[in-house]
Amino acid sequence: MLTLDDFREIIPDKKLSEIYQRASKLYNKSIVHVNATYQGGGVAEILNSLVPLMNDIGIQTGWRVLHGSLDFFEITKEFHNGLQGRDIDLTEEKRRMYMQLNGNFSAYTHIEHDCTIIHDPQPLPMIKFYQKHGAWIWRCHIDLSDPNATLWDFIKGFLIKYDMTILSSEQYAHQDLPVPHRIIPPAINPLTMKNKDLDEDAVREQIEQAGIPTDKPVITQVSRLDPWKDPEGVLDIFKLVKQKVDCRLLFCYNLAADDPEGLRVYDHICQRAQEDVERGDIIFVEGNQETLVNAVQRFSDVIIQKSVREGFCLAVTEALWKARPVVASNVGGIPLQIEDGVSGYLLEPHDLHGFAERIVHILENPGEGERLGQNARETVREHFLITRLLTDYLDLLHQVVNH
Amino acid sequence: MLTLDDFREIIPDKKLSEIYQRASKLYNKSIVHVNATYQGGGVAEILNSLVPLMNDIGIQTGWRVLHGSLDFFEITKEFHNGLQGRDIDLTEEKRRMYMQLNGNFSAYTHIEHDCTIIHDPQPLPMIKFYQKHGAWIWRCHIDLSDPNATLWDFIKGFLIKYDMTILSSEQYAHQDLPVPHRIIPPAINPLTMKNKDLDEDAVREQIEQAGIPTDKPVITQVSRLDPWKDPEGVLDIFKLVKQKVDCRLLFCYNLAADDPEGLRVYDHICQRAQEDVERGDIIFVEGNQETLVNAVQRFSDVIIQKSVREGFCLAVTEALWKARPVVASNVGGIPLQIEDGVSGYLLEPHDLHGFAERIVHILENPGEGERLGQNARETVREHFLITRLLTDYLDLLHQVVNH
Repeated sequence: MLTLDDFREIIPDKKLSEIYQRASKLYNKSIVHVNATYQGGGVAEILNSLVPLMNDIGIQTGWRVLHGSLDFFEITKEFHNGLQGRDIDLTEEKRRMYMQLNGNFSAYTHIEHDCTIIHDPQPLPMIKFYQKHGAWIWRCHIDLSDPNATLWDFIKGFLIKYDMTILSSEQYAHQDLPVPHRIIPPAINPLTMKNKDLDEDAVREQIEQAGIPTDKPVITQVSRLDPWKDPEGVLDIFKLVKQKVDCRLLFCYNLAADDPEGLRVYDHICQRAQEDVERGDIIFVEGNQETLVNAVQRFSDVIIQKSVREGFCLAVTEALWKARPVVASNVGGIPLQIEDGVSGYLLEPHDLHGFAERIVHILENPGEGERLGQNARETVREHFLITRLLTDYLDLLHQVVNH
Repeated sequence: MLTLDDFREIIPDKKLSEIYQRASKLYNKSIVHVNATYQGGGVAEILNSLVPLMNDIGIQTGWRVLHGSLDFFEITKEFHNGLQGRDIDLTEEKRRMYMQLNGNFSAYTHIEHDCTIIHDPQPLPMIKFYQKHGAWIWRCHIDLSDPNATLWDFIKGFLIKYDMTILSSEQYAHQDLPVPHRIIPPAINPLTMKNKDLDEDAVREQIEQAGIPTDKPVITQVSRLDPWKDPEGVLDIFKLVKQKVDCRLLFCYNLAADDPEGLRVYDHICQRAQEDVERGDIIFVEGNQETLVNAVQRFSDVIIQKSVREGFCLAVTEALWKARPVVASNVGGIPLQIEDGVSGYLLEPHDLHGFAERIVHILENPGEGERLGQNARETVREHFLITRLLTDYLDLLHQVVNH
């Protein structure tokens, strides 16, 4: 089991001690997190680390996962995209199914906790099915600055009953938020299979086992297969880079249980990149083996993140923690993590030539990649590890639970 | 939300009233069910109906789903098969992963209920991670009469801490059960999308939408794609039947989230039956659309269940409830449900010619199918509906909670 003591090799003792002291004021409180999946996606990863740690430091913290269905997740995926501004046909049937599944789940999920933390839109309506016994927090990982208007009005109908919203960044806040909000950026756990240190031999063993040739430099994008991640743009950039430096592109893709759209995007990309795939210059790596993802990131000469829109983007955080040079779009949470030219490179999403140029520059100047990577790692240590996230949650709980 | 009152059209008021009265003695008690998946497979189906009903009649009943991983489910699938007698290499690594995942889940799953009901082997070790505050029941849906000996000894190490085991049939009991056991056969909910009445037009609409031709009689097996269900034997029987009566075979298959082996079996069957599939005489129907499964069962002239070994076999129960003639192997829970020649036909699993003969007989004599089907439906109404299961659970809870 993960314990706070495990972080002594990474975090100064003084900071760990401060966490224990914060926890001591919450010993008789009970907390529960609710989200939509226990594996796949950034929220599940965070909860897999955060929830055991909260229990380890003495706060009784439960974790419930909504019992979704494929139909339901199709709808909530649309909501996710709609909150990011895409059009949505918000039919009566969709509203009804969204409510009904939450109602059914609530009927046998007994929540009488001092604080209930609801993650993202999927379980948002649960609050309608309870008498409030304690504070309810909506922890939204999505950029809410410019949502579809009809959907926003619908979502707000649930939000008004909450005590607070947590967002990843001030710039994600909708101007019409009906409840107070607080900024808590997400974070990664440096001790998971996906992030823990691997020596060079272990990396090479993973790469060879996965059948990835080691004869050329490697560029990698790690992401869900989502139009927002622009895998097609990644292909275009790769073709530009290849005109200057012979190299290989890896798509390390991750299909989450609540992401049926991903299957469709995968098919489309495979079709467009068929020739490159057959030549072995583009390789798809399944991202469900955490140690392999870890090795792929460490083995990559450059990590690319060509998103057109992002939440916080933990894939970037993971790459930065591994001291990799990251060339990424200047969108969502990415500029909160990368200082351009210092700890990576930022580009406008449409600037394919700019992306290609920076990647070629790093491939031709390994010292440059080294410098960016070291700065990147220290940024993550300071701001984006799970211990900082835990501290922020404790501060939040003091505010909403102990008044 | 499902309520007990919804059953008035199916169950006599007197029986419903008895259920309410039994519940009244448990009003101040809290119960929790734990299993491995919230969709896919018979256990999830039962809990999706049973848990809301228990809450509806006033018993606070939670439902927790173990946060499994693909690796974990590979192991527990082996355990399932091993408990049914297959060889298993019970390595230290498998024991460790089995324990670790249960330990991690237990760390944030706070169980202080009056009764905890653990379903099947996946969450069985949880009991090791708690101080007991109330009764713990292991509800095992697997035939335990002849398990792999090493595995049985390992499983028994957890079982000894339980207060009781529930089995589906007396014949599933291992002679060396270390705790008292009680027999509660499983049951179906007649009001789900999969089982509710559909008129002829609705059936035909579903069948046509699924692209199933309606020009020939239809034989169907509804099952997971599991060697125990012997889909290859079904193919052999189909070929024998076709020598006498032109007809079509449907495999209505269901892949559960905790069943990675199913994917492999599917590929193998598709390969062996390739020609028949291309000719359109064998059709695979995905079983994840409940209304379609319902329609397929109702549209079938004969339902076959060619298992070589079975748990209780709810697929048979569903077919019987739809007043279908079922031709099935005389194994597991099937003979508890079908009286040979009265409410269906029973055959030894190896008797391919016997299966074919009975199927031909029914196809050539529709009145015979009608007679068997009506008897089948009344058997299910009396013994295998969710209301009977609920009654049995209430009796059990009186025994273990109110002493």
